[in-house]
Amino acid sequence: MGTGTTVADATVAVVGAGLAGLAAARVLAGAGVDVVVIEARDRVGGRTERGHTADGVPVELGGQWIGPTQNRMYELVAELGLETFPTFNDGELVLHLGGRRSRLGPQRGATPDLGPFALADLAQGLARFDRLAGRVDLEQPWAAPRAVELDGQTFESWIRRNLRTPVGREYFRVATEAVFSAQAGDLSLLHALFYARSGSGLENLLAVDRGAQQDRVVGGTWLISDAMTASLGDRVRTGHPVRRIESGPTGVTVRTVAADGTDGEAFHAQRAIVTLPPTLAGRLDYAPALPSWRDQLTQRLPAGSVIKVHAVYDEPFWRADGLNGQAASDRGPVKVVFDNSPPGGGPGILVGFMEGADGRHFARRSPAERRNATVECFARYFGDRARHPIEYIERDWMAEPFSRGCYGAHFTPGVWTGFGHALRTPIGAIHWAGAECSPVWNGYMEGAVRSGEATAREVLAAL
Amino acid sequence: MGTGTTVADATVAVVGAGLAGLAAARVLAGAGVDVVVIEARDRVGGRTERGHTADGVPVELGGQWIGPTQNRMYELVAELGLETFPTFNDGELVLHLGGRRSRLGPQRGATPDLGPFALADLAQGLARFDRLAGRVDLEQPWAAPRAVELDGQTFESWIRRNLRTPVGREYFRVATEAVFSAQAGDLSLLHALFYARSGSGLENLLAVDRGAQQDRVVGGTWLISDAMTASLGDRVRTGHPVRRIESGPTGVTVRTVAADGTDGEAFHAQRAIVTLPPTLAGRLDYAPALPSWRDQLTQRLPAGSVIKVHAVYDEPFWRADGLNGQAASDRGPVKVVFDNSPPGGGPGILVGFMEGADGRHFARRSPAERRNATVECFARYFGDRARHPIEYIERDWMAEPFSRGCYGAHFTPGVWTGFGHALRTPIGAIHWAGAECSPVWNGYMEGAVRSGEATAREVLAAL
Repeated sequence: MGTGTTVADATVAVVGAGLAGLAAARVLAGAGVDVVVIEARDRVGGRTERGHTADGVPVELGGQWIGPTQNRMYELVAELGLETFPTFNDGELVLHLGGRRSRLGPQRGATPDLGPFALADLAQGLARFDRLAGRVDLEQPWAAPRAVELDGQTFESWIRRNLRTPVGREYFRVATEAVFSAQAGDLSLLHALFYARSGSGLENLLAVDRGAQQDRVVGGTWLISDAMTASLGDRVRTGHPVRRIESGPTGVTVRTVAADGTDGEAFHAQRAIVTLPPTLAGRLDYAPALPSWRDQLTQRLPAGSVIKVHAVYDEPFWRADGLNGQAASDRGPVKVVFDNSPPGGGPGILVGFMEGADGRHFARRSPAERRNATVECFARYFGDRARHPIEYIERDWMAEPFSRGCYGAHFTPGVWTGFGHALRTPIGAIHWAGAECSPVWNGYMEGAVRSGEATAREVLAAL
Repeated sequence: MGTGTTVADATVAVVGAGLAGLAAARVLAGAGVDVVVIEARDRVGGRTERGHTADGVPVELGGQWIGPTQNRMYELVAELGLETFPTFNDGELVLHLGGRRSRLGPQRGATPDLGPFALADLAQGLARFDRLAGRVDLEQPWAAPRAVELDGQTFESWIRRNLRTPVGREYFRVATEAVFSAQAGDLSLLHALFYARSGSGLENLLAVDRGAQQDRVVGGTWLISDAMTASLGDRVRTGHPVRRIESGPTGVTVRTVAADGTDGEAFHAQRAIVTLPPTLAGRLDYAPALPSWRDQLTQRLPAGSVIKVHAVYDEPFWRADGLNGQAASDRGPVKVVFDNSPPGGGPGILVGFMEGADGRHFARRSPAERRNATVECFARYFGDRARHPIEYIERDWMAEPFSRGCYGAHFTPGVWTGFGHALRTPIGAIHWAGAECSPVWNGYMEGAVRSGEATAREVLAAL
């Protein structure tokens, strides 16, 4: 049983040792501030996670890619002595859309074989979307022209109104699932516009070539968190799920739960930074209770639905067929695939995602059923050899108690205009950070780091 | 400091002493089952609450009306020795829509003075809505024809597509705010259809005459919970906020938090019924963690946004002007008003609601600002005498830590089709109840009682 007494003091308590929390702590520690990072899990890294094949080849169970304009990530990787390597992108991508099966060159701007009507429709839809997105102020999306109207409809409604061909619509839907791990009908149009602009444009979010999937980190992205943790030393306290934050005249008391469900350690600090995903931040017991607008905000920011699946093969056999291991399809449950083999030889690894409705459906199935469904999809894209992986590795992020979904939260309709102002606003001595708080690269590792660092500076200014 | 040890045993632990929890406990106790009801607040009643004027006249701070087809409520009121009286409805309603100010007779079917185009538009819109709603199966809304399409758009999108006149659109929007305490852009069309059908039709939800606002309970609706609590005796334990439910081979352990934030009492039972609103049920710490579909469901069921406001006058002065004290307007912040005076003489009391965007806006203002805004609205509807109440009484339900919104939760787009199956499905020994769980009169006191009783029977069958 825990003691329920305050056992540790610090100037700033950071809740969560994901990228945002660790980046915040690093800034604070660098400024000479006494900081403690309180992490629920027995590991750091949040929505990045270490995995490996039976042979010890690293497999990233969570976030893994970085790309152009994610400047803080490239800088951070370099600062920490890590290296990047390009996502495998030699050869053609397999595209199954609207009943057509085609191959697409790996360069940005390659024209898919979708027929002239669908192509024109798609081009016009993308242009319209970009034009609308260009009007969204990343700092305050609720101030966009016609914001209430844009926020009062789903992205799906916009797709139906603006795309005329089945293929054009399916393209946008698959893109939505790949980017948001949600259905286009789940999220606000204004949020789709904000998010795309936040990540430098929808096509950028989808691309390997000069896009958000361009690069990987040698050894795995968890090494970023590991390296930050190493420099923070015993300031990082894992295995302490926070459940309550009390604010008083002397600062905050952050209370944790012990493994047996009773009171765990408590930490006292002048200020706290809560870096949990919104839906988890909203579950903590705050005393006094948070203002209603903050609480109603986090009621409305659900985490996406995704299961990340990997199949491991003796070799990346698809490469011999001129394929780059990438696939995009409107038929699931695994609609998006990449070659996730390690750099410099070794086994062939395909990574795919069961997203949105597919993820929700397969969350209720057994690992064996998910494995079968996965290799069936891989075989459809890359041939029969894909049916016989030597290993299957998965992570259902919805089932993770300390994430409860991935990749990030999406704003349901009405939330940006009704509650957006509350997203980053501190409440007394409690500050907020996390991938979902970032105006730039919202929802990505880049956004997490930027947000953590920005909030750390906010706290420094307030100390 | 609490003890963290198990101090109480029962066969069934009910979490929450609102109408659902008390109704469930009553069924269980009636069947001879040892039941304990664990309530966070120092009072029972949940989203019904006792209030009074300075002179002691009862004022209902929460849910207050019952109407035709709410059979369990009428039965329960009678069983408990309580009485109903009709909501004051003599005289005309003040209608301000689309810049027109008119009066409307109090009978269902009275024709508002909105001009022929708007009237035709409205009639057609209502007919279309009813036709669509008639196809929704209350037990499984996700099985409705074209359910994914209906669920992938907001109600606002439907309104824009199906209503052509500004007045027709405003009517639906004001109705949405009045019924859901949310904007039409916040919620799924499928949910709007389900909810209206669940309450016997949209017009029924809005009406006093033969509608959901037809009757009141003499003395106040909290007397229902008080009477149920009296019959349950010391089985009802107030002042014990539940924060964790552990499931094990011998049943469930329900752990509470003490006033100082440390471990409070714990209760052991064979089974638990959680009757909290979805967003609060989802915040409890479940060990083992709940399956992902249950967790992702409660991430997506936000509570509505409403502040209930009352102004008290020496007498119901509006009645002398031939007005029934009711108003409906497309200009807020108080768009819907009723005469809430006690039966049989006494002061005049107007009750109004700041709902949806209005409620969210005024949640951030001071009580004095809310009072001023309220009496300005009342004066607009009923004349200058409304500017000078002898008392102003309000309840911001968003700010209530153990409700976090009213009237009920709404399903955001995609939730019925993605997660509806999880709404009432027990998880091991944990069962669910509450107004939001009821197929019939979802979100109303009737739904709460029905759900509590239905879940109690489910538990009885499982014991």
